[in-house]
Amino acid sequence: MTYTASVVGGSGFTGGELLRLLDGHPEFEVVQATSRSYERKTVGHQHPNLRGMDLRFSSPEDLESVDALFAATPHGVSMERIDDFSDAADTVVDLSADFRLDTEEQYDEWYDGHACPEYLEKSEYALPELNRENLPGADLVASGGCNATATLLGLKPLFDAGVLAGDEQVVVDVKVGSSEGGAGGGAASSHPERSGIVRPYAPTSHRHEAEIEQFLGLSVSFTVHAVDMVRGASATCHVFPDSPVEKKDMWGAYRDSYGDEPFMRTVAGGGGVYRYPEPKAVAGTNYGEVGFEIDPKNRRLVVFSAIDNMMKGSAGQAVHAANVALGIEETAGLEFQGLHPVGAP
Amino acid sequence: MTYTASVVGGSGFTGGELLRLLDGHPEFEVVQATSRSYERKTVGHQHPNLRGMDLRFSSPEDLESVDALFAATPHGVSMERIDDFSDAADTVVDLSADFRLDTEEQYDEWYDGHACPEYLEKSEYALPELNRENLPGADLVASGGCNATATLLGLKPLFDAGVLAGDEQVVVDVKVGSSEGGAGGGAASSHPERSGIVRPYAPTSHRHEAEIEQFLGLSVSFTVHAVDMVRGASATCHVFPDSPVEKKDMWGAYRDSYGDEPFMRTVAGGGGVYRYPEPKAVAGTNYGEVGFEIDPKNRRLVVFSAIDNMMKGSAGQAVHAANVALGIEETAGLEFQGLHPVGAP
Amino acid sequence: MTYTASVVGGSGFTGGELLRLLDGHPEFEVVQATSRSYERKTVGHQHPNLRGMDLRFSSPEDLESVDALFAATPHGVSMERIDDFSDAADTVVDLSADFRLDTEEQYDEWYDGHACPEYLEKSEYALPELNRENLPGADLVASGGCNATATLLGLKPLFDAGVLAGDEQVVVDVKVGSSEGGAGGGAASSHPERSGIVRPYAPTSHRHEAEIEQFLGLSVSFTVHAVDMVRGASATCHVFPDSPVEKKDMWGAYRDSYGDEPFMRTVAGGGGVYRYPEPKAVAGTNYGEVGFEIDPKNRRLVVFSAIDNMMKGSAGQAVHAANVALGIEETAGLEFQGLHPVGAP
Amino acid sequence: MTYTASVVGGSGFTGGELLRLLDGHPEFEVVQATSRSYERKTVGHQHPNLRGMDLRFSSPEDLESVDALFAATPHGVSMERIDDFSDAADTVVDLSADFRLDTEEQYDEWYDGHACPEYLEKSEYALPELNRENLPGADLVASGGCNATATLLGLKPLFDAGVLAGDEQVVVDVKVGSSEGGAGGGAASSHPERSGIVRPYAPTSHRHEAEIEQFLGLSVSFTVHAVDMVRGASATCHVFPDSPVEKKDMWGAYRDSYGDEPFMRTVAGGGGVYRYPEPKAVAGTNYGEVGFEIDPKNRRLVVFSAIDNMMKGSAGQAVHAANVALGIEETAGLEFQGLHPVGAP
Repeated sequence: MTYTASVVGGSGFTGGELLRLLDGHPEFEVVQATSRSYERKTVGHQHPNLRGMDLRFSSPEDLESVDALFAATPHGVSMERIDDFSDAADTVVDLSADFRLDTEEQYDEWYDGHACPEYLEKSEYALPELNRENLPGADLVASGGCNATATLLGLKPLFDAGVLAGDEQVVVDVKVGSSEGGAGGGAASSHPERSGIVRPYAPTSHRHEAEIEQFLGLSVSFTVHAVDMVRGASATCHVFPDSPVEKKDMWGAYRDSYGDEPFMRTVAGGGGVYRYPEPKAVAGTNYGEVGFEIDPKNRRLVVFSAIDNMMKGSAGQAVHAANVALGIEETAGLEFQGLHPVGAP
Repeated sequence: MTYTASVVGGSGFTGGELLRLLDGHPEFEVVQATSRSYERKTVGHQHPNLRGMDLRFSSPEDLESVDALFAATPHGVSMERIDDFSDAADTVVDLSADFRLDTEEQYDEWYDGHACPEYLEKSEYALPELNRENLPGADLVASGGCNATATLLGLKPLFDAGVLAGDEQVVVDVKVGSSEGGAGGGAASSHPERSGIVRPYAPTSHRHEAEIEQFLGLSVSFTVHAVDMVRGASATCHVFPDSPVEKKDMWGAYRDSYGDEPFMRTVAGGGGVYRYPEPKAVAGTNYGEVGFEIDPKNRRLVVFSAIDNMMKGSAGQAVHAANVALGIEETAGLEFQGLHPVGAP
Repeated sequence: MTYTASVVGGSGFTGGELLRLLDGHPEFEVVQATSRSYERKTVGHQHPNLRGMDLRFSSPEDLESVDALFAATPHGVSMERIDDFSDAADTVVDLSADFRLDTEEQYDEWYDGHACPEYLEKSEYALPELNRENLPGADLVASGGCNATATLLGLKPLFDAGVLAGDEQVVVDVKVGSSEGGAGGGAASSHPERSGIVRPYAPTSHRHEAEIEQFLGLSVSFTVHAVDMVRGASATCHVFPDSPVEKKDMWGAYRDSYGDEPFMRTVAGGGGVYRYPEPKAVAGTNYGEVGFEIDPKNRRLVVFSAIDNMMKGSAGQAVHAANVALGIEETAGLEFQGLHPVGAP
Repeated sequence: MTYTASVVGGSGFTGGELLRLLDGHPEFEVVQATSRSYERKTVGHQHPNLRGMDLRFSSPEDLESVDALFAATPHGVSMERIDDFSDAADTVVDLSADFRLDTEEQYDEWYDGHACPEYLEKSEYALPELNRENLPGADLVASGGCNATATLLGLKPLFDAGVLAGDEQVVVDVKVGSSEGGAGGGAASSHPERSGIVRPYAPTSHRHEAEIEQFLGLSVSFTVHAVDMVRGASATCHVFPDSPVEKKDMWGAYRDSYGDEPFMRTVAGGGGVYRYPEPKAVAGTNYGEVGFEIDPKNRRLVVFSAIDNMMKGSAGQAVHAANVALGIEETAGLEFQGLHPVGAP
């Protein structure tokens, strides 16, 4: 193990995934996990899959000095504590929304203002498929929003290939699992109310639009539905390019963008049961699947994208970015292929 | 009981729902249910909820003379047997796609041609909210497609109110349950493969587009996803009107179209857990829920619509239409309010 | 409508089911539903299936005078307010555990003592299959516990037929849905933690043992598991009779006990998919299914029993008992047959 | 990679899990996967999680020579082809029931006779916790039945500790997921019929009783229910020891049996949401969880046991046994810790 690591906010869902990934990572050693509510409890108390891990939650007030600190705290916490985090670690990877956007203006528009805007220009967005070249040596890395990640992965090749320029009409209809709501949850997240739903939970004005707009220069019509799964985000992008596109050009576009990416797969048609991207097929993994279909009648291009919101959309993306930032093999600790069959992911 | 009724194709899912509805209907008496595969078995053998019903499946070759015949056979069967059906019953209600469209040309475009095109102009579409005035006295009624029904119910008020004229961009992203695939099913419908999915199962060119186009004069960009529920169809319509719309106008539009409709509810915001239309809230009922949200940033109007695909989207719609066709109280036999809480519908 | 009714504790799950049943009941008129937390909200705010019902929650402090008051409050509340309830209504039907047992000693053993033990001998247990003859004219009716109800319905015919005398070994392994936990719920009931579980939630010493012991004179080894459904209780009773039993005797026993019962069905083997009792087959209904299989190798008799915990196990049982108590047709308001197919009940 | 391996019957569920485990195993190289139905298709065609694996199914008639052959064929196939398998590989690991029992008489009693009884005494049962000492160098290893495995793991420590001797009353109530039914499946396994069930699918006379009886010398009263999950087997053993047991003795018994086992965890009480063994907590892993609770009132001991039926109950057990048989590190290729939270496993 080459690097020491800590997880701040280790009792939540993404905190648990970070602990699992770092504990199984050949180059990281977890030396601290913090939790205010569960101080002195074992990490297995909150995360039953980690019952074999010999570590107890400690107070977030006493941060140990580590090589890499991963913050999985609620939005707004990291911006208050970023100086502490930076004192404690050379590399800070933040999983909240606090450092994803570039400017204070954007935060004022989409969030409730920013406590330390001077860090915004220093932070790097964590998604390697979008931002790999800026990650090596980064001090502060901001892991992307899960729904934004799914959308960005689906649409980016269209910009790379010139199919989209940024002023086209794009509707993004996202379906997500209940883990997006985090641990605890209220009445709407209770099993009797949440089971079996198709619930419009962010009909308009979802904050992840800001990340998409920042990276693609594209204003998207974005709507998020909650469906009955725990993990997973599926983005269906209904795209209306200015000029008709052909299937072979689309295959070329996705191959050009993702042909060398270790975690991206293009799935579009073919045989068998799983013919397009599905969250279920990537559940538990850091893989992202993208695919497409052309609708000549409506001059439409439909792009499908599926990730595990806890992995490629959060903790996996964070570890992937940390690997790149620290010069570790990109796929280290992220090789899990997923299961088949599996129930609700 | 005023009318005798039979169900042809009684062993399938919609056949079972028809039997349940007609058996509990104050004005119908079920005298026959046919099934080639389960001849002589009780209806409860296939439909455990009907174990108390004293009726056995008989051969579809020997149709009894009844007042109303409901056909719940696969697409293509009714067009072959329509003369037999018409001989057996004054009123035929067909739940397949065979008589939904107006012209032979449409069938040639969307299906595989039509065996008896002369019946097309005689048939009436079953959706009373769209077509009530044409139903009384109809000889042949064609129950609508479930996904088309959800979409039509969501969009029709926008045409009534002049928000849409027919040449606007409209994306319809539908989420449906596994009962749409019918009884039996292959590998893709097996529980291990079908659980917990968000699966693009009709990315483009879904045949229900034809019904929507016929009734609204609108070409929609239509995509259907299978999600983890058994019953239910949820249509999210992303609409881009030529002129901006206001919330109060939208409320007015839906009130004008559905204020007097016994089975339609408008749900848009407000408090509680269920703030927009959800299939779960109407599961088992003939109710349809519609709602909307305005997205000024993208000049978009988002319309949500939810039904039970087996009820408002099929068997319930058929009985509702039969009630109107025969001059029975519209809501007779369809009063069930649904359950709360309930699991996957 | 002959009788006025109120529901105290109308915002919870069983309160909502009571409102639904009474609203659709030909002989009851709902004049009040109380809720401390949701005072002045519509009942549809909490129960989306009741959006069409024109009633708002009022304070539980101001009880209207009614013919029948149904109390769906948490355990311990009714015993504190029973005098108020009795002042407000001639017939009180309580759905909590407060009046199910006969003696103060039993309450001291299984619960935390009783605030008004003098009511215990006046109350009648609500399950008509067990206690029909005592219900007519009852002033205070105590609806049974859902798990106890499932077990009692399964085992009672064995006592009627002399297969069991009370000193045999009986293991009862129960599987229940999430609605048993009530509305709200904490971390263990949240969708991410509760989905897909088989969780031992009452390994031993479940309080419903007391009801079973009281009515059958049998000490049962009782264990309850939570599984992934919302509604439903399934009890599997592993019974070791002193003498071997034969299939035809078992059929005779169940026929003798339940042949005339309007809500009981015996299901044991036969063909099709649903060959034994299943909660899914009775979801939403007041029906109970019982069945059995003989295991000669182990001298064992396995008895299966399935109900909807919200209906036959709670609100439906309460209305059924009220029907009998007030001399109304037994099945009035409880005719719903259930749905097929349906997802997680 | 030290050993070459092949998977016969690679298109089924356990075949897919074997391919995943062997592909990620540091000491195995997969050189062949056979499938009659999917010959020449990629393994990813059937197993979407293996889309990145560069291997196509070949005919089961042409077996390559390998170090280890894993057979994941339906019951009855291996006994017909065992000579071919033995010719092709030094070590054969069979996942069917064909070689689990010791004698021809047992097969005649529980199955339909055996085609090559001479192999029965040569085969070794695969469960290392039960049979580790016999595995090194074994030529033919028989992976145990999933339900038997769950039960054996729960009860074995009671025999080791002298709590049970073999003539006590033991009821085993098992709950399993839909993957036990295998790929394909008929109407009973279709999503609409299989969702949300608690279905008695083997009320009595389950064949896995034979394995339990063979290893523990105990006749168990065994009943299996299908519940709504895909992976997982949970066995609840209701045990009636001759003498009372104490909690500390039970902890001692489980510690003695499993304290050094790399894949066994004892979970009994404590805090948090997951207080007893749950399939969900071990989904996707080779871990088994056991736990217990004492019921003094009924002189009963309740033992809970949970595994992933596809892993510890099948493919994982097979690889674990192969590791031991070949002298590889026991945990190699089986280190995955599982996910939290996760939906239906």
